[in-house]
Amino acid sequence: MHYPEPISKLIDSFMKLPGIGPKTAARLAFHVLTMKEDAVLTFSKALVDAKRNLGYCSKCGHITDIDPCHICSDKSRDGSMICVVQDTKDVIALEKMRDYNGLYHVLHGAISPMDGIGPEDINVSSLLVRLQDETVQELILATNPTIEGEATAMYISRLVKPSGIRTTRIAHGLPVGGDLEYADEVTLSRALEGRREL
Amino acid sequence: MHYPEPISKLIDSFMKLPGIGPKTAARLAFHVLTMKEDAVLTFSKALVDAKRNLGYCSKCGHITDIDPCHICSDKSRDGSMICVVQDTKDVIALEKMRDYNGLYHVLHGAISPMDGIGPEDINVSSLLVRLQDETVQELILATNPTIEGEATAMYISRLVKPSGIRTTRIAHGLPVGGDLEYADEVTLSRALEGRREL
Ligand SMILES: [Zn+2]
Ligand SMILES: [Zn+2]
Repeated sequence: MHYPEPISKLIDSFMKLPGIGPKTAARLAFHVLTMKEDAVLTFSKALVDAKRNLGYCSKCGHITDIDPCHICSDKSRDGSMICVVQDTKDVIALEKMRDYNGLYHVLHGAISPMDGIGPEDINVSSLLVRLQDETVQELILATNPTIEGEATAMYISRLVKPSGIRTTRIAHGLPVGGDLEYADEVTLSRALEGRREL
Repeated sequence: MHYPEPISKLIDSFMKLPGIGPKTAARLAFHVLTMKEDAVLTFSKALVDAKRNLGYCSKCGHITDIDPCHICSDKSRDGSMICVVQDTKDVIALEKMRDYNGLYHVLHGAISPMDGIGPEDINVSSLLVRLQDETVQELILATNPTIEGEATAMYISRLVKPSGIRTTRIAHGLPVGGDLEYADEVTLSRALEGRREL
């Protein structure tokens, strides 16, 4: 035996997290032993609550603890605009900016023929339903400025064109090849401002 | 709102761990959402179990889930030797080596007048009780090869000398200024082999 069982089990759990190797896992586990019991119980409960009480919004696909999510159910938001993003973290990045007051639609991915990901593998069909049901005037395509993100934006743009709804693409204020999620707020704000019709 | 509450609470808990900033905490929290519920429950339980079911051995001070610990209660171990270390992680490092079959004593620190840590602040008095009660013939002082570790070894050596028990100091196979916990097994093994009388 090297570690008493309760600590080796905790080390195992920490090691299942991304980017955490055996040394870091041991360091974190030993740190837990020095924490107040209250804080450990809070951590323990937070894990289960996050897993159990979160899901995806049935309207927009954003991660949420209520359905529809806080954004979709906020009457003060502008229902005439939907900003389409690849990932739920992109919604969080755009919300931090505080400049945008419309709604969102999360695709949970991007079209990538190389990886075998087609239009049917991302959350597009529910977007088309929303465009029929809601009074949307503009669809802002804020997928990542990568090959996959561009392809996805082009695909959605062509699909929506016949409906007469305006589709715009977020400007390349973002460094090409980058990830929207890691863009700073000013860059994001400029990119949104400079959006152009597709 | 940026994150739904269950996820922001989980991010807060991850951020209380050492070396984990807001970006890493968010990445880990989002990873938890993608884990199987079983694995999350195991992690959650491991946290509480480690905190609640671990304590220090009343004999040697090592971290343990039973008292006395697995090492102290192992009849096959050589009770004539006690290896004195600063930290419970040092026991684990020495056990990994598999060369040593004696007992341990964990000081939980080292004498450091600069930091106001005197002999009464480390687990020395219980060591003296053990030396009276048990049939110890050799005390191996394996405190860290630092100023504090050396001072602590010298202090204990002088304290024990009148009793006639042999006191040895682990050899400086360890790089001076280093931390025993991070030494590789070969270095540790050499250091133990080359121990000398004080
Ligand atoms: Zn929603
Ligand atoms: Zn013990």
